[in-house]
Amino acid sequence: MRNQKLRYAMVGGGRDAFIGAVHRRAAGFHNGMELVSGALSADPGKARLSGQDLGLEPGRIHADWPSLLNDELKRPAAERIQFVSIVTPNHMHYPVARAFTEAGIHVVCDKPLVHTSEQAADLIRLAGQRGTLFAVTYNYTGYPMVRQARAMVRAGQLGEIRKVVVEYHQGWLSRLEEATGTNKQAAWRTDPARSGIAGAIGDIGSHAENLVATVTGLEIEAICADLTTFVPGRLLDDDGSLLIRYANGAKGVLLASQIALGCDNDLRLRVYGSEGALEWHQEDPNVLGYAPIDGPRQTLVRGTPWLTPAAKRASFLPAGHPEAFMEAFANIYLGVGEAIRAREAGRPLEPLEGDYPTLEDGARGVRFIEKTVQASRSQEKWTRWS
Amino acid sequence: MRNQKLRYAMVGGGRDAFIGAVHRRAAGFHNGMELVSGALSADPGKARLSGQDLGLEPGRIHADWPSLLNDELKRPAAERIQFVSIVTPNHMHYPVARAFTEAGIHVVCDKPLVHTSEQAADLIRLAGQRGTLFAVTYNYTGYPMVRQARAMVRAGQLGEIRKVVVEYHQGWLSRLEEATGTNKQAAWRTDPARSGIAGAIGDIGSHAENLVATVTGLEIEAICADLTTFVPGRLLDDDGSLLIRYANGAKGVLLASQIALGCDNDLRLRVYGSEGALEWHQEDPNVLGYAPIDGPRQTLVRGTPWLTPAAKRASFLPAGHPEAFMEAFANIYLGVGEAIRAREAGRPLEPLEGDYPTLEDGARGVRFIEKTVQASRSQEKWTRWS
Amino acid sequence: MRNQKLRYAMVGGGRDAFIGAVHRRAAGFHNGMELVSGALSADPGKARLSGQDLGLEPGRIHADWPSLLNDELKRPAAERIQFVSIVTPNHMHYPVARAFTEAGIHVVCDKPLVHTSEQAADLIRLAGQRGTLFAVTYNYTGYPMVRQARAMVRAGQLGEIRKVVVEYHQGWLSRLEEATGTNKQAAWRTDPARSGIAGAIGDIGSHAENLVATVTGLEIEAICADLTTFVPGRLLDDDGSLLIRYANGAKGVLLASQIALGCDNDLRLRVYGSEGALEWHQEDPNVLGYAPIDGPRQTLVRGTPWLTPAAKRASFLPAGHPEAFMEAFANIYLGVGEAIRAREAGRPLEPLEGDYPTLEDGARGVRFIEKTVQASRSQEKWTRWS
Amino acid sequence: MRNQKLRYAMVGGGRDAFIGAVHRRAAGFHNGMELVSGALSADPGKARLSGQDLGLEPGRIHADWPSLLNDELKRPAAERIQFVSIVTPNHMHYPVARAFTEAGIHVVCDKPLVHTSEQAADLIRLAGQRGTLFAVTYNYTGYPMVRQARAMVRAGQLGEIRKVVVEYHQGWLSRLEEATGTNKQAAWRTDPARSGIAGAIGDIGSHAENLVATVTGLEIEAICADLTTFVPGRLLDDDGSLLIRYANGAKGVLLASQIALGCDNDLRLRVYGSEGALEWHQEDPNVLGYAPIDGPRQTLVRGTPWLTPAAKRASFLPAGHPEAFMEAFANIYLGVGEAIRAREAGRPLEPLEGDYPTLEDGARGVRFIEKTVQASRSQEKWTRWS
Repeated sequence: MRNQKLRYAMVGGGRDAFIGAVHRRAAGFHNGMELVSGALSADPGKARLSGQDLGLEPGRIHADWPSLLNDELKRPAAERIQFVSIVTPNHMHYPVARAFTEAGIHVVCDKPLVHTSEQAADLIRLAGQRGTLFAVTYNYTGYPMVRQARAMVRAGQLGEIRKVVVEYHQGWLSRLEEATGTNKQAAWRTDPARSGIAGAIGDIGSHAENLVATVTGLEIEAICADLTTFVPGRLLDDDGSLLIRYANGAKGVLLASQIALGCDNDLRLRVYGSEGALEWHQEDPNVLGYAPIDGPRQTLVRGTPWLTPAAKRASFLPAGHPEAFMEAFANIYLGVGEAIRAREAGRPLEPLEGDYPTLEDGARGVRFIEKTVQASRSQEKWTRWS
Repeated sequence: MRNQKLRYAMVGGGRDAFIGAVHRRAAGFHNGMELVSGALSADPGKARLSGQDLGLEPGRIHADWPSLLNDELKRPAAERIQFVSIVTPNHMHYPVARAFTEAGIHVVCDKPLVHTSEQAADLIRLAGQRGTLFAVTYNYTGYPMVRQARAMVRAGQLGEIRKVVVEYHQGWLSRLEEATGTNKQAAWRTDPARSGIAGAIGDIGSHAENLVATVTGLEIEAICADLTTFVPGRLLDDDGSLLIRYANGAKGVLLASQIALGCDNDLRLRVYGSEGALEWHQEDPNVLGYAPIDGPRQTLVRGTPWLTPAAKRASFLPAGHPEAFMEAFANIYLGVGEAIRAREAGRPLEPLEGDYPTLEDGARGVRFIEKTVQASRSQEKWTRWS
Repeated sequence: MRNQKLRYAMVGGGRDAFIGAVHRRAAGFHNGMELVSGALSADPGKARLSGQDLGLEPGRIHADWPSLLNDELKRPAAERIQFVSIVTPNHMHYPVARAFTEAGIHVVCDKPLVHTSEQAADLIRLAGQRGTLFAVTYNYTGYPMVRQARAMVRAGQLGEIRKVVVEYHQGWLSRLEEATGTNKQAAWRTDPARSGIAGAIGDIGSHAENLVATVTGLEIEAICADLTTFVPGRLLDDDGSLLIRYANGAKGVLLASQIALGCDNDLRLRVYGSEGALEWHQEDPNVLGYAPIDGPRQTLVRGTPWLTPAAKRASFLPAGHPEAFMEAFANIYLGVGEAIRAREAGRPLEPLEGDYPTLEDGARGVRFIEKTVQASRSQEKWTRWS
Repeated sequence: MRNQKLRYAMVGGGRDAFIGAVHRRAAGFHNGMELVSGALSADPGKARLSGQDLGLEPGRIHADWPSLLNDELKRPAAERIQFVSIVTPNHMHYPVARAFTEAGIHVVCDKPLVHTSEQAADLIRLAGQRGTLFAVTYNYTGYPMVRQARAMVRAGQLGEIRKVVVEYHQGWLSRLEEATGTNKQAAWRTDPARSGIAGAIGDIGSHAENLVATVTGLEIEAICADLTTFVPGRLLDDDGSLLIRYANGAKGVLLASQIALGCDNDLRLRVYGSEGALEWHQEDPNVLGYAPIDGPRQTLVRGTPWLTPAAKRASFLPAGHPEAFMEAFANIYLGVGEAIRAREAGRPLEPLEGDYPTLEDGARGVRFIEKTVQASRSQEKWTRWS
C-alpha cells in the first residue's frame, strides 16, 4: 500500500450507469486511486448530481468533459489528475481519449476502444508522440486464472496450440428490450449511433477476441463470419459465429450471442495444444481446468501453491474465499497504477508489473469488429485480417 | 417381455472389435433378441473363433457374409434370422446391406451408413421395393433425455429455434495412434479406404449432425466448413468446424475434433429458442438443462415424474440409478424389435414404438459428410445442401 | 466369453418387482449366465405368468421356492442350477438362503442379508460346512471407480485414513407413499414385518456402511446414532445420522435419508487421509476426485490409462462412453461367476477374480443395522460394536 | 451513495494480517466508510508502520487501543469515529469491545465474539445500557443467495424444516503448520491462549452454526459432539462432527474440519423441508439449488428477476458477473452503516436495512463453542443447550 493515492477523473459513469460504478470500485479496490473530478454525464443536471453523490469538490464537478480537461490543465501538478477514466457509450471514446492524450494525460478507456481502425491508429500515433499511457479495460484478462492460463501457454506447457474455442453467451437480449423504454443498457448497446457497426460481436465478441489473444498470443490470419439479428426490430446483430485461421496454423471458433437463453454472462475459453489443454469459465473464475496429455485432468485453483507467479500476484484472498468480477477488474487498474507510478518515478517496470490491456489490444479489437462485419457481409469464405 | 426372441445375424464384430460387443449387448439388453448366426470377421479363422466364443451353433458360424446369407435363405422361416446387424468397418456397409436388403431381410447398420449418396439412394430405393426395415445406429438418440429434448422442441416449448451449437470433442487421436501398430480403432478410422473421405467429421461429426436433426428437425440449407488435419502423417481430418444455415432462418455451429485433449467422448448439444433453451451432455446423460425465458433454470432428471412419455418410455431404472451408453444403445434395438414384431404381426406401430434412426437419417448423414468435405475444399463461403 | 453359461434360478423378482429385472440383466450382462428356473412370486398365479414372460420351461416355473429346490435337486448335474439368486423382500432372505445353502447350492442374495445377527452367523456356519459360495449384492461396490478408490486406499496412497463421510440421500419418501396403495416399493420397505427393524438405515444406510468398509477396510469400534421418523404415520425411520469411531482412530459420519427432497439416489463418499483425499458420487460414477496433499486436485476417469488394474478390469466401455448402475451390478455377478467357475474347475482364483461382497459383508451389514437401532435408542453416547 | 462517509477506527489488522485488509475493503466497498484512526498491531512499531501504509494522519496512529479510545473521546463529534472495527486475535475481542461499548461507541467485531458466555452476556447487558450498536462479522450471511435462502425458508416455501446438513471443510491444517514458524494464521488459530477452547469448531464450526441459524431460525435443543485432534502435536481440535436436535423436531448435522484435504473453504448448507429443499455452496456462491416437492430442480441465480427483495438488495452486479467473498463481507458493513446512519438520524430502519449479525448471534456462537466442547467431553449422548 502506498500513502499517496493516484488522482483521476471520470468521464461518463454517472447515476444509472452500471459500468461507471464498477470502474470506480475497481480503481479504489486497492486503495491506491482517488476520484477527484468528473464530467459524469452528458446531461449537465445529472452530471452535477452524480458528482455530488460521489462527494467531489464542487469545483471539480463538470457539465462536460472539455471544461473538466481545461480545469485540470490549469491546476498545479500536485493537484492535477494523473489519468482519466473514460466510461461513456462507445461513440464518445474517441474524442475524449484524443483530447486527454493530446493534453498529455494518461487514459483508461472502456472497450471497444473506438469506432474505426483509423481512429485507433490516430490514438496510437498520438500517444506515441505524447508518451502517455493508455489502457483499454478488457477486464476479463484481469482474472488470476486467465493469467495462469496465459503463463502456461506462453511457457509451452500445452505444446503447439492447435484449436481454440471461445464463447460468450448471454440471453438478456432475447426479446426487444430496447423497445421497453426502461432498459438503458439495451437502448444504447443496440443503437448503431452509439454502439457502432456491431451489436453482440462488438459488445461481447470483442472480449472473446481479446481473451484468446491475451492467453495464446495467436495472430489471426483470416476469418469467416456469420452475424445474425434474430430479434425482429433490432438494428444490430445479436448473434455471431466465426471460424478463424491463425498464422501458426491453429484454428479457432468464436461464438458470441445475446439471445442464448439460460446464459447470463457465459464467457468460456478452451485451448487445445499438442501437449495439453486448458478450460476456463468466467462464471466460475477461480478454477482452471488443465488436461496434460500424459496424466489425469487437473483442477487448478486460485490461491493454491502450485500456480505461476503471475496468477499468485493477481490474487488477494486465500483459496476457497472466492474472488470474482470486481477483483479481476481491479487488477486492470492495479496494473495501470503501477505503470503510472513507475513512469512518474522514472523507473522501469518490475517483472509482472503494469499488466493491463494496451492501446494495441484496443486497436486490434476495433479491427476485429470491422473485419467481422466485413466478413459477415462477404461472399468470400475467408476474409484476410491484413 | 416376450417369450419369442427375435433371431439375428451379425456381420463383423468379432474378437477385438469394440462395437460388435456393444451391439450384441444392446440387442440382448431387453432379453428380446438372440444372435443365431455370424460372419464375425473378414479373417476366416478369427470369424470361427469369434463364433465359438459366442456359443453359436457350428453350422451358423460363417467365414464370410455371402455364405451366411445363403445359408439363412435356405432355412425355414421359423429358424431363419429376422434381421442382420452390420458392424464392419464402413467400406463394407454398402455391399452387405444391399445384399441382405435385396434378399428381403431387415437390416441394422452402423453409421456412417455408406460412402456415397448414390449408394444411400440405392439402398432407399431397394428397401422401398423389398419393403424391408432398415435402422442406422446413431445410438446417441436413444438416450431418454435426448428424446425428452426432442419432445420439448417438437411441442414448441422452446418457441422458434434460433441457434444450435453441437460439439463432439475427443482427444484420443492427439498423437499418430495409427502408427503405433497396436490401436486397431485408430488404424481403420484414419484409413480412407476403410473409413471413407472424412475422419473426425465422418466418425463423430455425423453423430453430431444426427443429434441436431433428431432433436430439432431443422433442415440444413447451407454449410461453411473448415476441416483440418493437425497430426502430421495423418491421412484424414482430425478436426472440423462448421457454420450452418437452416431453412427456417436458424443458425448452427457444429464442432468435431479428435485432438481435443482432456475430452473423452464429449458430445454436447445446446438449443436456443425464442422461448427457452436446452442443454445436454452425453457424458452426463441423465440430466437435461432447461432454461425457460420466464423463470429459473431447471434440471430435468431421467426417471422423474415431470418428463414426457417418450422419455419415460425409454428409461428403465428409477431416477438416481444412472443409465448410460448401453441403455441408450439398447433403446435403438428396442425400437427395431418393436418395428419388426409389428411388421410380422401385420399391425401398425403404437405411438412411441419403433423409435430408431432410419435409412433416411443414414442417407442424410452421408450427404452431411460429402457436403462438409466439399465445403471445406470450397472457396465459396456457403455450400448449398441441395 | 465362454461357451457354457452358468445356470441359475431366481426366487422372487416377478412382474412389477424392480430389483428382479435388474438382477437378471446383471447376470446376463456378460452373456455368462442363464436363468433356467424360477419361483418368481409369493403369488402362485403371478409366479407362473412371470416365468412365462421370461420364457422359462414350464417344468421349471414354480409356485414356491421349496418346490423349485426339490425339483432342481432331482435333476442331473448338467442341468441343475449352479446358483440361486434371492431377490425377495428381506424377511424371506433367511429361510430361502438357508435351504439352498443347506442343499449345497451357491447363493446370491440381495441386501440386507437377514434380520438378525444370529441368522447371519447361522448362514456363515452353514456355508462353511457345505463349502458353498455366498454373495450379497451390495451392488455399488461393483463400480470401477469404487474399486479404484479401494485400490488407492489399500495401497496407502492417502496415507493414514482420518475422516470418512458417507451419505446416502433420497427424497422419494418425503410423503406417506406407503399409504397411497400404488407404491409397492414404499409399502414393503416401510413395513417392519417385511423390511426389518430399520427403514432408511436398513435400506440405504447399509449400502453406505458397506461402501466405507469396502473402500477403506476400517473397522467400526463404536457408533452414536440418531434415527428419526419424519413423516407422520410411518412405522420405520426415514432418516438417520451416525457418528462413528473406527479402530484405527479414524472418525466417520454416515448419513442416510429418504426425506431429502431433490435427491434421487445420492450416495456419496469422501475419504480424507493424511496424504490425500478421495470423493465419489454414485450419480456421477465414472469419475473419482483425488486430492493429493502436494499437488492440484485430479479427476480420475473410468477408462483412462492411469487407473489401477482393478478399475480397468471392471470397466468395459472406453472413457467418455459412460457406464452406470447396470454395469456395476453386472460386475458383482461377474465376480460370482468367476468364483463358481474356478470352484467347479478346482482351480484357485486369479488375482482380481471373484470380486464380490461376501457373506461376511452381509453379516456386518446386519450388525450395522442392529447396532444403529440400539444406538439410536440408547442414552449412552457410544454404543460399542462388539 | 452518500456524501458524508462514516468514520471508523480499526483495532488489529496491521501488516501481515489477512482479515484486517478484508474488513477495510469491505467497509470501503460501497464508498460509505472511511478509516480515520487505528491501533493496528500489538507491536507498536508495526502499528505505526501499518498506519502509515494506510495513509492515516500521524495523530491518529496509535500504539495501543486505550490510547486510541482516549484520543477519539477527546475529539469533537464531527471528527470522532462513529464505530470501531475489532479484528484482533480472539482473546482481545472482549476487553476492546467492552471498552468501546462502555464509551458509547458502536462496535463491529470479528467472530467468535469472545471466549465465554459470561463475557458475551456482559457485552449484551452493557450495549443495552449504552444503547450502542454491535455487529459480529459472520460474513457468510452477507451473501445474496444466503439471504435468498433465508427469505424462502422464513416464508414457508420449504414447508416444515426437517433436516439440516451444514459442512465447513478445509484442508490447510492437514500438517502441523503451526510448527513451521512461517504460518501466522496457523500459529494463533491453534493456540488456546489466543484462539480459545476450540480450534476448527471455533474458527469455522461457528460460521456453520451461524449460517444455519440465520437461514432457518431453528433453535438448538441439544447436541452430541465428537471433536478430534488428528495432527500430532496440535493443541486444539482440527475436526468436529455434531448431531443436533432442534426445538421444532428438526434434526441437524454439523461438520467442520481443517484436515479435509482437497477442500479449500468449502462451507455448504443443505436444508430439507416437507415441501422443498435448498442447497448452497460458499465456493460457488452466486447460485442456490432449490428442489420443490412437485417439480424439477431449479438453479436460482444471483441477479436474476425471480429472487426475493432481500437477495436483490444485497447484489450489485448483473447475473453472470460473479460476486464473491468481498461483496458478501461488504454487505455486512453496509448493514452496519445503515443502522448507524438511521440511529444518528433518529429514524427507524427501513425494511431490509440494517441486516447484519448481531451481538445475540455472537453470544449464541460463543455458547455453541462452549457447548460443543462440553458435549465432546461428555459421556452423555445429548448435551442440552440450556
